[in-house]
Parts: sequence; C-alpha cells; structure tokens
Amino acid sequence: MSILIVGTTALDSIKTPTQENPRLLGGSASHAAVAASFFSRVKLVGGVGEDFPKKYIALYRKHGIDLAGLQILPGRTFHWSGEYEINMNNRRTLATELGVIETFQPKLPDHYRGAPFVLLGNIAPALQLSVLDQMKKPKFVVADSMDLWINIALADLLELLKRVDGFVLNDSEAGLLTKEDNLFRALKKIHHLGPKYVIIKKGSHGSILSGPKGMFICPAYPLHTVEDPTGAGDSFVGGLMGYLAGARGSIDANLRRAMVYGSVTASFCCEGFGLNGTTKTKRTDIEKRVKELEKLTRF
Amino acid sequence: MSILIVGTTALDSIKTPTQENPRLLGGSASHAAVAASFFSRVKLVGGVGEDFPKKYIALYRKHGIDLAGLQILPGRTFHWSGEYEINMNNRRTLATELGVIETFQPKLPDHYRGAPFVLLGNIAPALQLSVLDQMKKPKFVVADSMDLWINIALADLLELLKRVDGFVLNDSEAGLLTKEDNLFRALKKIHHLGPKYVIIKKGSHGSILSGPKGMFICPAYPLHTVEDPTGAGDSFVGGLMGYLAGARGSIDANLRRAMVYGSVTASFCCEGFGLNGTTKTKRTDIEKRVKELEKLTRF
Repeated sequence: MSILIVGTTALDSIKTPTQENPRLLGGSASHAAVAASFFSRVKLVGGVGEDFPKKYIALYRKHGIDLAGLQILPGRTFHWSGEYEINMNNRRTLATELGVIETFQPKLPDHYRGAPFVLLGNIAPALQLSVLDQMKKPKFVVADSMDLWINIALADLLELLKRVDGFVLNDSEAGLLTKEDNLFRALKKIHHLGPKYVIIKKGSHGSILSGPKGMFICPAYPLHTVEDPTGAGDSFVGGLMGYLAGARGSIDANLRRAMVYGSVTASFCCEGFGLNGTTKTKRTDIEKRVKELEKLTRF
Repeated sequence: MSILIVGTTALDSIKTPTQENPRLLGGSASHAAVAASFFSRVKLVGGVGEDFPKKYIALYRKHGIDLAGLQILPGRTFHWSGEYEINMNNRRTLATELGVIETFQPKLPDHYRGAPFVLLGNIAPALQLSVLDQMKKPKFVVADSMDLWINIALADLLELLKRVDGFVLNDSEAGLLTKEDNLFRALKKIHHLGPKYVIIKKGSHGSILSGPKGMFICPAYPLHTVEDPTGAGDSFVGGLMGYLAGARGSIDANLRRAMVYGSVTASFCCEGFGLNGTTKTKRTDIEKRVKELEKLTRF
C-alpha cells in the first residue's frame, strides 16, 4: 500500500569535526521518504524554493517518489546549517533560514487523499493538522515532532495527538512534554494525550515501543563509523512506516519488525553525509543487517 | 561450581531526592556476592572494621556466602556517602572514609584457592592482582573496575588486564581508558590489552558483550521505580558470574544468558536502597523477569 509523507524539504549545510558539506538534500520529509521508498510507494508533500537543485528532484524520482504534492514556490528553499561536536551526539544550529517554508501550505493532489498510511514528519503541527484535514479515512497515521513545537506550538501539537494512531519522539522530548523522567510514567502520560502507539527514540541506544500488545525494546544496529547522524530519526520513522505500508497483516503483527527495519534504515543514514548513506543502500543490504540484528540480540 | 568474589565490603550512606539511608550494607563485593548467591556457592574475600554490624554478617550467611575470607580488622569499616540527583543518573560523592580498606590485604583461606570462577570486583587493581596470585588455576576470571583506578593506578590495571578472561566497565570508563568514542574502536583497544571478553555496561540502556562469538546486545529490564541504583553494576556482574558458575556447558554457550540474568538481578537491586531490593528477591522472581525480557525483545 502507499504512504503519504509530509515534512520539511530542505537544504542542510552540515559541519562535523572532520568534514563540511554545504547544501545537501535534507529535511524530515526527504529523509523519511527515501527511507520509506525501500518498502512501499511514497507520495511526498512539501515545499521548496526556485533555487532547489534539479539533481535533488532527480534523486527523489530515482527512488520512485511521487512528487505531485511537492510545490515549487517563489523564494528560497528552507536552509539549515549545524555543527556536530566530536562525539557526534551533541549538535548546535548555526543558522536557520526558513525561506519558502515560512508561508508553505500543504495542498494534497486528489490521488494523495486516499493513501492508507500517513507519516506526519517533523514540521509545524498546524501543517500536520492541515494534511490530516485533507485526507480521506487513512488506516494508520503516525506523527513525528521536535522540542521546538513542544515549546512554541504546544496547543496545536496536543490537538494533533488526539487525532493520530502513533507518536514518535526522542527521550529528551518525552521528558520535556511530560515532565517525567521515568519511562513508564512518561509513556502513560503520552498515551493519555491520544496515541495508541508511542515510540521513544534513544539514538544509538535503540528505541522503545509502547502499544496495546505491551512494550518492545528495539535495538540499534551498532556502527563502526558515524559520518553524520542528521536525519537518522526521520529515516527511522520513514523506514518503519514504509515497512508497515508494504507488509501484509495487522499493524500489531508487523510493528516490531517495522521498528527493526526503521532502525536498520537509520543506521545506513548515519554512514554518510545528508542522504548519501541512505541512497547508496539496497534492500538486500537492509535485509542483511536485520538478520545480523537478530543474531546480535538472541539469547 | 563455586565462585570467589573479592571487592569492597562497605557501609554506604545514600541520599536520593526522596530518602536518606545511613550506613547500609554496600560495597562491590557485597552487592556482587548477594547477586551471585542466587545461582552458585560464593566465597567472599574482603575486610571490614570492628564496627561492622552483626546483622550484615547474618545477611551474608542467610545467602549462604562463605565468610572464611572476610577479615575483621582493627579500625572502622570503609564508609562511602553519596547523593543522587533528581533523575537518579548522576551522583556525587559526599564523603569517603577508607578506614580498614586502606591497609587491607586479601588473604585467601586454603579452600578458596581452587575456586573455578573468580570475580575481581571493583577494588584497587593491586589487591585484585594479589588475589589472582593466590589462586590455583581458575577456569574463568572476570575483573570489574572504576574510573578512579584508570586515573590513579593505570599501570596495575593494565597488568591485571593481561591476566583476566573478561573485563567489565561502563561506557564512560571505556572512553576514559581508550580515548575512543566509537564502540568498536574502544572494544578493539580493550581486547588488545588482554581480555578475550569485554562487557560494556550502559545502565538503563543495557550492556554490550564482545567476545570470540561476536557481539551481543543485552537489554536492561525496564523499571517502574528506581529507588537507588547504587551497586547495580556490581549486582550485574555478580549475577552474571554466579549464573556462569552455576550453569553447565561452555562459557561461550552460557554467556549471553548469563548477561541477561545479571541484567535482571541488577534490576532488583535498583528497586530498593542498598541491598534491600536484592535481598527480598527470590530465584523465581528472577526467572519471571528473564522470561519477560525475552518477550520484550523478540521480533
């Protein structure tokens, strides 16, 4: 089945202790869409400026991504630049130029509205809500977010949480949202806000699912080299939702494996700058790492 | 088979945001010995002062721990006091009174020298070496340590590492010892120092084994309440080594399950102050959580 993905479509300038790469293809929707494209057909919703390089349009197309919902708007593409510290865990934003994203309003082409799976990637919750308003009855909707929206758009985010099946956030965002440091208490509060499924990302420590079938502790694939972790969280949820959309059977039957596929897809993202790690990956590479993770965790 | 455990035998005064508990039974050897006692016969090596409460001797005995190697020395018992921050992850030492531990020299009773399993719990590496010198050919020796010894007794520690089968340390100590932040590079350097098996503890994120059979990602048992994490690392390695000593078959065949048993034993330690969480646990409670962990990680 197909999946609709909305989020930011951006240019990222990324500095690490060893390298500097200007104006790479980035943004939550780009990372999630390419990650999901390994498993199902993706319909992208986003907005870029007139400066958006044609090679990135070609990259989306190479991954079979439907671009009918990608608007090319007067002005410049959203540009983020950031710098990672030596251990690659902490990063600081050097500059954020919103460009066309400031006034972007998602408009869904007719053939998008019936997509059964919807990933509301990280973007302002008001825009995530606007996408949801334009959909016919989707089967499974998951939202991602970030600390910024918890801080400046909490009312919209809380409205959104009432209307989604699943919510993905990292452990520090879970603490910020719930004021709880214990995992169980934080999960309980988030479920109470609406989502039946809550997934807490812990970077290189893996992730945790909480849902009607209980909890699942999902491992991260251990990496020899982390080139650039930008977009790893988006790749995780993109891979996860893409796998779910492509799999037969119920959500509950597939969700644990979907998380493992998301985790593995994110591992490839970390091995290159921007989308370079992900785009050079093949489905067979993903299957191989999933099998390895089975071996690494069996007892 | 039996296991010899050396380490500190201490009194701990522990402050958390909600409680304060003075002069609890603590120390690396106490936590490890009680944890190991669920699975095999334990021979304790340590030194306490004349002030050491009789009730703690009774506690050791209740767990069937052989105390022939516990010296009661003129002076006061090693006393540590510390305070945990609100999230229970960071702690600071308020006072360290070495007492008899300053001049303690382990002396092994004859019937200790043939123990097939040896756990060199956290104590000065010179004392760990002295225990090793007194042993006949043990089958499997594992050492634990701490940042202090990496900082002030590195030469002794490096000497020790050449003579042990396994080494257990936490992720920040691995960084301190190897100056590497990548897991694989750190593990490679530690193996190069001697140990065939290296286990990196990551607290609530679980632990990692690296050995001849490859890597194992071991989950932590998720807890609703953490009362006091003091001794959790010692309980982990105590439970692990106790399980190995009690199990049939090769080290390689048992080590993954041994880590899971260690992880679960440590989870009980965190649920009470000092040893209160561990001592009220039964073997059946441990088995139940091991089964739960299987369910929590299966995909």
